[in-house]
Amino acid sequence: MNKVHNFSAGPGILPAEVLKQASEACINFDNMNLSLLEISHRSKNYEKVMDEARSIVKELFEVGDEYEVLYLGGGASMQFAMIPYNLLRENGTAAYVNTGVWASKAIKEAKMIGNTNVIASSEDKKFTYIPKGYDIPKDADYLHITSNNTIYGTQLKQFPKSPIPLVCDMSSDIFSRKINAKDFDVIYAGAQKNMGPAGSTMIMVKKDALGKTGRKMLSMLDYQVHIKGGSMYNTPPVFPIYVSLLTLQWLKKNGGIAWIEKINQQKADLLYNEIDRNALFFGTVEKEDRSNMNVCFLLHKQELEAEFDKLWKEANISGIRGHRDVGGYRASLYNALPLESVQVLVDVMKEFEKKFA
Amino acid sequence: MNKVHNFSAGPGILPAEVLKQASEACINFDNMNLSLLEISHRSKNYEKVMDEARSIVKELFEVGDEYEVLYLGGGASMQFAMIPYNLLRENGTAAYVNTGVWASKAIKEAKMIGNTNVIASSEDKKFTYIPKGYDIPKDADYLHITSNNTIYGTQLKQFPKSPIPLVCDMSSDIFSRKINAKDFDVIYAGAQKNMGPAGSTMIMVKKDALGKTGRKMLSMLDYQVHIKGGSMYNTPPVFPIYVSLLTLQWLKKNGGIAWIEKINQQKADLLYNEIDRNALFFGTVEKEDRSNMNVCFLLHKQELEAEFDKLWKEANISGIRGHRDVGGYRASLYNALPLESVQVLVDVMKEFEKKFA
Repeated sequence: MNKVHNFSAGPGILPAEVLKQASEACINFDNMNLSLLEISHRSKNYEKVMDEARSIVKELFEVGDEYEVLYLGGGASMQFAMIPYNLLRENGTAAYVNTGVWASKAIKEAKMIGNTNVIASSEDKKFTYIPKGYDIPKDADYLHITSNNTIYGTQLKQFPKSPIPLVCDMSSDIFSRKINAKDFDVIYAGAQKNMGPAGSTMIMVKKDALGKTGRKMLSMLDYQVHIKGGSMYNTPPVFPIYVSLLTLQWLKKNGGIAWIEKINQQKADLLYNEIDRNALFFGTVEKEDRSNMNVCFLLHKQELEAEFDKLWKEANISGIRGHRDVGGYRASLYNALPLESVQVLVDVMKEFEKKFA
Repeated sequence: MNKVHNFSAGPGILPAEVLKQASEACINFDNMNLSLLEISHRSKNYEKVMDEARSIVKELFEVGDEYEVLYLGGGASMQFAMIPYNLLRENGTAAYVNTGVWASKAIKEAKMIGNTNVIASSEDKKFTYIPKGYDIPKDADYLHITSNNTIYGTQLKQFPKSPIPLVCDMSSDIFSRKINAKDFDVIYAGAQKNMGPAGSTMIMVKKDALGKTGRKMLSMLDYQVHIKGGSMYNTPPVFPIYVSLLTLQWLKKNGGIAWIEKINQQKADLLYNEIDRNALFFGTVEKEDRSNMNVCFLLHKQELEAEFDKLWKEANISGIRGHRDVGGYRASLYNALPLESVQVLVDVMKEFEKKFA
């Protein structure tokens, strides 16, 4: 079988060794002679997985016990509701920066729960840039931002200095680069891009940010209930969490975030340089806001699309079709994607240029 | 490696062939040369899984297009909130039957959302029986029941004839016996007992039961949003749903619910007969309400526990330790548990009797 170069925007590529370990755990987990899919989440073998999955996040982010880590079902979309539900006081206001579809969805849910103030937006230019230089209201309960915008291929290169609690949806670039995690009150991420398969969402929350809203809360939407239950208030998504742990162990073993950040920069540079050099392509967003995770580009001559598609398919490339809102192409360069795959794509682009420029 | 007899209360045993298919899908799914864990949920290969996973539920339950099937994250515990949120009118009342810890949790969440009337309860005798002969208020918005109570080992043998919409938590006995699914407005089940691994919850809902509350709803808690999105409003728990599909395909291929109901009856009869015959053991619940899924029993002489534990462990039996609320033993006889495993347990009980009676 030929290797597929997997540029899927998410669920996205995972390390081959993680997939092998996951496959084995489906048959015989931890030498129990039982599948991970059919054992109690209260077994000591699985409690160890949950403990490690929670502690490795704090280790990679270099934070202490002032933070708690949870893995919940429901995806980042559920967090769009849980963030204001847990942090927005009954008469308070939440500040949001709108950088695309996912930020807009977060804003929509927050508006259902309380006062919401969109303090900056790049909607005027179809989300092709990151707003900067906006004022953050000091009396808002928190500021919500999205670190990377998968659909458009933009990324916050510098996080705002926030005088109020900072909450960040990092679903599509978590653990891809060094950040100062202590600047955030909440970091959350659907696992299915950089830290595992679909089915669980990681939430890292500063404990003292909680319990201030005065709101009576449904148990499953209450971070404090899940914290008290050690992320096992109810049966957790056992297998997705295990594969997230494997993925983070792979990252740590190979050198952690410092290691992957360098490789991610190499991959992004290689592809963006080719887009800028190649006469047939152009990038879709402001250069200074280009995402190192999702590289969006278009053909100058759309009529050549079928020809280009033929070439990359022959090269065993998968998942670079652009999102319907942007069109063209989107190559997602998540942590597990090797530099080699980007080189294959760049070679295809060069070959295409030779034939059609 | 010796086979383990897996009596775990949940997550519970899955068919060996399902585990093998799941393991293979982690490496190469649907001949894509990619893992199921790293492909888009919008790929045609996965959309087929989702479509089949939804349609097979309706096929097994023999219902038509008046019902919709969803698979959501968050477990049955999330449904404890979503049921009243979607079905309980702002000034309406919901009726609940309290048959144990899980029913109590459902009631707690419903009370957060609206008026809740507990019309029957077996709490007076520590949930060791199923309440019967209660009146169902005709003006309530729905009646919520729990078909099987995992912790205590009780099961509704006959469902109440309800003049109002009937909602049932079937987490621990779904697809284990013939029911008339058309009598229910909502059937829901955390997958991790009879229909798959942890991480997804199946909800089958009658479409015309929805949209009547007048409540403005958070997107992720709104069944109609998920129905509109074909259970993919957001990224679903891809792998858990796939393994649920495999489990239901295994059931269907072997003869469906009629087939498994017979085997489940044989397994339950075999074990309950031994409990009643054996001088050292006794069952913990009313005989007429005994669950065919979770068989709870105690030793007359608790001081012999260590001796019994030694015997079943030697026989490679796993997961029969009782829930802390009941103590003693609980053997869960879910669909995938073979009759052979029950025979091994019964043989151990007989051997134990010979030694210690």
